[in-house]
Amino acid sequence: MDCKKFIEEQIAQIKQTVGGAKAINALSGGVDSSLVTVLAHRALGDQLRTVFVDNALMRKDEPQRVVETFARMGIPVELVDARDEFLSALAGLTDPEQKRQAVTDTFYSKVFGRLVKESGAKFLLHGTILTDIEETVDGIKRQHNILAQLGIDTEAAYGYAVLEPLRTLRKDGVREVAKFLDLPSEISQRIPFPGPALATRIVGEVTPERLETVRAATVIVEEELADSGAFQYMAVLLNDRATGIRNNKREFGSIIVVRCIESTDARTATVTPLSWDKLNRISQRITQINGVNRCLYDLTPKPPATIEYV
Amino acid sequence: MDCKKFIEEQIAQIKQTVGGAKAINALSGGVDSSLVTVLAHRALGDQLRTVFVDNALMRKDEPQRVVETFARMGIPVELVDARDEFLSALAGLTDPEQKRQAVTDTFYSKVFGRLVKESGAKFLLHGTILTDIEETVDGIKRQHNILAQLGIDTEAAYGYAVLEPLRTLRKDGVREVAKFLDLPSEISQRIPFPGPALATRIVGEVTPERLETVRAATVIVEEELADSGAFQYMAVLLNDRATGIRNNKREFGSIIVVRCIESTDARTATVTPLSWDKLNRISQRITQINGVNRCLYDLTPKPPATIEYV
Repeated sequence: MDCKKFIEEQIAQIKQTVGGAKAINALSGGVDSSLVTVLAHRALGDQLRTVFVDNALMRKDEPQRVVETFARMGIPVELVDARDEFLSALAGLTDPEQKRQAVTDTFYSKVFGRLVKESGAKFLLHGTILTDIEETVDGIKRQHNILAQLGIDTEAAYGYAVLEPLRTLRKDGVREVAKFLDLPSEISQRIPFPGPALATRIVGEVTPERLETVRAATVIVEEELADSGAFQYMAVLLNDRATGIRNNKREFGSIIVVRCIESTDARTATVTPLSWDKLNRISQRITQINGVNRCLYDLTPKPPATIEYV
Repeated sequence: MDCKKFIEEQIAQIKQTVGGAKAINALSGGVDSSLVTVLAHRALGDQLRTVFVDNALMRKDEPQRVVETFARMGIPVELVDARDEFLSALAGLTDPEQKRQAVTDTFYSKVFGRLVKESGAKFLLHGTILTDIEETVDGIKRQHNILAQLGIDTEAAYGYAVLEPLRTLRKDGVREVAKFLDLPSEISQRIPFPGPALATRIVGEVTPERLETVRAATVIVEEELADSGAFQYMAVLLNDRATGIRNNKREFGSIIVVRCIESTDARTATVTPLSWDKLNRISQRITQINGVNRCLYDLTPKPPATIEYV
């Protein structure tokens, strides 16, 4: 693809559409929303307000790291602390669909919806890519109308518009453009991380304590597999517990699943055949996390499994 | 060790202790209780009654296969169908300790206790090995007094005696004696299989349907790993479920964990570094079981994990 042409066209189109108005976008730190932020900032400068919502479900130090990365590029990002709102919404939920819905609803109808309305912006930029559209059509992802999710009545509030500058690209195209733009590799090469974040890496209830466990496991997996070249790797905390033995006493502990896959666009995936040295090292480190006494490796391709668990 | 001497001594001791009375033992099909059965049959002949209790938790065709194997050695084994009693006792239980207790109680106080009392036997032969005694002392296994478990008041019913001919051997010693006696390799080389059987391979409630799932997975794992030379291998059905995708539709499926370990005496264990060809083949077959869409490989040594999950 012609990256230069794509970038120029998108910047021109954003400029033309937004004109002198205000625009807003939410940055998650993923490559899609990062690229949208960079394109929109080039097009709009101070007319753009970019927010990063800390939903309590991010990886270790992630909110601060993302804000700093963009600050180094001269792009201001506003960090919004909404941790309590998300944790309250998730308390007591164990059903995967209800959990995903709670994260989505809290983000769109509460936190981001409030920010959009307060901002006075009429234009909303969103990192939708072609795969999202295809999976919505196929019924794999739930269909969504972003303005409706934001609690914005498009009939009453005439003039709101959603811009999706990446809607013609797949993940590999997004990475190519990000690389062409010389974005830092922690953005262009960042492994995919889902919207509901660590909530999708916890089977069962999401609590601050369980988030700590899966966050610690995620640090280990990301350190150990950073140079694997894999498409995506993750740690998942199961709800089930298993017996273990420590200091000669029976105990009952948590189970962490490690998943590492090869893919080009996340539509299908195969399992990375990691070396036994690497698997043993990961298992040894993970079972040192407080309360964890099992480490499993997921052997399932997509299909029949999805990439995530929840 | 001197196998010939061990066998002669144990047979002589059983003969001398039991005299002209009746004895009974329960055969599980494992190498310990099989060796006890052979030694006691040589010592006692028709004075011995050997029962095999079908607890609904055995592997595919296992009860029939065990009875036939002993029939070919000229040793009669009585097959007792107690499936309903065990399934009723397990219904609704999800706590591992309660499940194990239900299986133990149903076996000792109900089914086997009843058989012992009906048989008129005053001598009970049991396949306790040295590791069992050590782990009871260490508090890893729950301490047990077999006669009390059978509901036999030893004060009131003076004269009951338990014989444990293998109490000085570890697992490797038991196998050595079994080999020396030329027992069929499906006995002497049988991988360890726990007393509560497939109930320990199911996290969560044990139901006939879930038993079918783990039984199907066990067939695959045992076929694929029969020539692995590993100490023990198993399939475990988790209670957690994970998302999957089949025919382009999201589904919610069961998770099977495969565990394969190296050990000499089950006190410690390391994970078998299976080849990726083998792991992929196992995963592919297991995810064809009805309702199963994930297959995981356990990377945890003992300690900190135990060999079993429940």
